Amino acid sequence: MPALNPAFADIVELLVAVPDGDETAVAAVRARDAQLTKPPGSLGRMEELVEFLARWQHRAKPRLGNPMVTIFAGNHGVTDQGVSAFPREVTAQMVANFTNGGAAISQICGLHEINLRVFELALELPTGDITKEPALDDQMCAATIAYGMEAVAGKPDLICIGEMGIGNTTIAAAIYAALYGGTGADWVGRGTGVDDAGLARKADAVDRALARHAGALDHPLAILARLGGREIAAMLGALLAARHQKVPVIIDGYVASAAAAIAHAVNPAAINHCLFAHVSAEGAHARVLDKMGQTGLLDLGMRLGEGSGAALAAVMAKTALHLHDNMATFESAAVSGKSA
Amino acid sequence: MPALNPAFADIVELLVAVPDGDETAVAAVRARDAQLTKPPGSLGRMEELVEFLARWQHRAKPRLGNPMVTIFAGNHGVTDQGVSAFPREVTAQMVANFTNGGAAISQICGLHEINLRVFELALELPTGDITKEPALDDQMCAATIAYGMEAVAGKPDLICIGEMGIGNTTIAAAIYAALYGGTGADWVGRGTGVDDAGLARKADAVDRALARHAGALDHPLAILARLGGREIAAMLGALLAARHQKVPVIIDGYVASAAAAIAHAVNPAAINHCLFAHVSAEGAHARVLDKMGQTGLLDLGMRLGEGSGAALAAVMAKTALHLHDNMATFESAAVSGKSA
Repeated sequence: MPALNPAFADIVELLVAVPDGDETAVAAVRARDAQLTKPPGSLGRMEELVEFLARWQHRAKPRLGNPMVTIFAGNHGVTDQGVSAFPREVTAQMVANFTNGGAAISQICGLHEINLRVFELALELPTGDITKEPALDDQMCAATIAYGMEAVAGKPDLICIGEMGIGNTTIAAAIYAALYGGTGADWVGRGTGVDDAGLARKADAVDRALARHAGALDHPLAILARLGGREIAAMLGALLAARHQKVPVIIDGYVASAAAAIAHAVNPAAINHCLFAHVSAEGAHARVLDKMGQTGLLDLGMRLGEGSGAALAAVMAKTALHLHDNMATFESAAVSGKSA
Repeated sequence: MPALNPAFADIVELLVAVPDGDETAVAAVRARDAQLTKPPGSLGRMEELVEFLARWQHRAKPRLGNPMVTIFAGNHGVTDQGVSAFPREVTAQMVANFTNGGAAISQICGLHEINLRVFELALELPTGDITKEPALDDQMCAATIAYGMEAVAGKPDLICIGEMGIGNTTIAAAIYAALYGGTGADWVGRGTGVDDAGLARKADAVDRALARHAGALDHPLAILARLGGREIAAMLGALLAARHQKVPVIIDGYVASAAAAIAHAVNPAAINHCLFAHVSAEGAHARVLDKMGQTGLLDLGMRLGEGSGAALAAVMAKTALHLHDNMATFESAAVSGKSA
């Protein structure tokens, strides 16, 4: 079995040496929360969202003046296997739609004042068809991870990680099968809406890819390079840089979770700063979350990608922090506290 | 067994003769949705929210320019039984906090531009202690239902129904036990945060109330009067008037669901225009929803009341409609459609 390519050495080091969260900041948030005019704990996960922001921003008074949704877009050679209901050119067309404001994510971000940034990843150069060849060579994979790290350069208060790429639910399914075992049929779903025959082609493509690369899937980063997806590599870079730059992360759905799954397989603690936005209706997403010990914040039957679920979770986080910052205290509102 | 008091005759008639939803409006929404730049169905329950608005507003182009959260506040004689962690005067103090902008609901509504209206229900006159006497006499109960109907007088585009009332989770538990069987222990929860002894007092209070009124709980409206809660009666009036006035309803949590449960027990179709905002962490709320054949939109471990869960669901509805109204179509954005 080949050793991991040295190109990945820095990335492995960053995945292993992740900083801890700031529990002092969390304690400060909890102390304020206890004074707010509501029964302790009664806002449930809304309270946890504020603690999450404090812990990973390392701020006793977390901020969300500058939240950002990022969409990483890539194209995939595996679309030659008839795995998508939409043609490959839709990836670039949707990138234009994001920028022009016509996409769902554009409208969510516009309504709720969230910044949106799109990263195109060589759309004119689809990755290799994984049923026949590696998606990316190791050097290109490592370079794409490094490129993804630039997403947090503007130091947003929160980064939502989403993606666009015709064919990429097949890619994500292949990664899950390689990480967690099972066959293609265990992990594929209908993606943008393939029929039964398309679903069978997806499962078959995953199985053939696993067979083609058997023996070369011995490390999570090797899995990433062989089965690939430029957008998945870049999302891994983004979430990893976010951890080191003290930027909390919200992971979108089925495909974005593949980037987190690679990180988690190297070091489970590497995704502690990631909140999983929702349970996607796509394929086995609930099982993917379970493998990582995570639960989705929302469960709305969504399967759109493009960061849409993550943006809705960010709306919840914005609302939660607004409550934390602006609610009255028992003292200021002259409300009687809990009886002894 | 006594016949139902004639005071309730008009209310029963309104509950039985509810208008159907507008399926033509729903069809128009679905036709537009099919043109939007996303895979069909990929926004899941966000798409259903727009259909819900169209169906119950009876509008092919639903509107949400004028959404409203209503909070009905009442006081309860059963607090004499030590069923709450907070003293009774907190009800009035929190009503002031709603108006002054210090409460969670005030801040959610302020951030997301939702109107907020508070209905105080004779806070200086707590209902009868249900372990010893009826909560309300039938005439007063019917009058309170009628008063609640005024909540939709301003014809909001959407009404969120919430409540405030120290002691009212015990009242709601008693209603559920009377409607669905079982004992107090099956339905009570920790409310604002009672300890184990307080929880036992709640269960015992429910059991004693059921014994005290045995034989007089033969109709859902008789249950409402005996076990009561002015705010629960008023919420029933509000949701019923909303149906007849073509105003969709979002029901908040454990206590607000009791109003829906009364309506549902008279006529299951009477709550078809009600969306259940969330699964509360209080007591047996998930089981209450199941009894009515409903699922909550959100599941955030919240148990605050005051319409807070309903308001978050309204934020989702506003976002969903914004997408429906503003997303590009495949044609306008020049995005290729689904392959044959």
